[in-house]
Amino acid sequence: MNGGRWAYKQVIVVRKDLRMGPGKSVAQGAHAAVDGVTEVARTHPAWLAEWRADGQPKVALRVGSLDELDAVCDRARAAGLPVVRIADAGYTQLEPGTVTCAAIGPAPADAVDAITGDLSLL
Amino acid sequence: MNGGRWAYKQVIVVRKDLRMGPGKSVAQGAHAAVDGVTEVARTHPAWLAEWRADGQPKVALRVGSLDELDAVCDRARAAGLPVVRIADAGYTQLEPGTVTCAAIGPAPADAVDAITGDLSLL
Repeated sequence: MNGGRWAYKQVIVVRKDLRMGPGKSVAQGAHAAVDGVTEVARTHPAWLAEWRADGQPKVALRVGSLDELDAVCDRARAAGLPVVRIADAGYTQLEPGTVTCAAIGPAPADAVDAITGDLSLL
Repeated sequence: MNGGRWAYKQVIVVRKDLRMGPGKSVAQGAHAAVDGVTEVARTHPAWLAEWRADGQPKVALRVGSLDELDAVCDRARAAGLPVVRIADAGYTQLEPGTVTCAAIGPAPADAVDAITGDLSLL
């Protein structure tokens, strides 16, 4: 489900172990998406333009722990991909500073899939 | 839950009647958030700057039908607020063109709350 359809994509990786409610998950994923776009606008504007032309594909995937999220982020950074991690402000549901999710890209889909292709859909 | 805490906010309004899975909801909400930010960067850059300085608060709310979503969007536009509606590309789960959600803002929180303050959290 993560492969092949687009040339550029953004992947949002969400911690499932936190058992966030649906509204919390949507808000945290939206933080990651917006921050990822902001980062890539600065670092890789050509990627951003290609991704927008592609229809801005986004895929939400799951991990089961903070360790797993950090491992994915580390591998993505080592591959030269833009990564943003989101820490919750903690007004509701979670302790302040809890890392909830991350965005990888927008970036070339092949490079993203090489890191996240084994993760399940959220 | 929707009031008072911030001076600026972005609200993401999601159709609950479509029974989207969690990954679909996160991806669609992320589309709305990113498109809303892009729109407001163009139309109200000062609002965007204030909202970013506030920590980019986002709240996800629910509606029960397309009619209800459209009514909220119409009221927001009539109040001069920036609104983006998201139509799904339809690769998975939904028919192509299905309107799934909308973003209002980032915009002054009081004006947003006047439109969406009666909606429940997603």
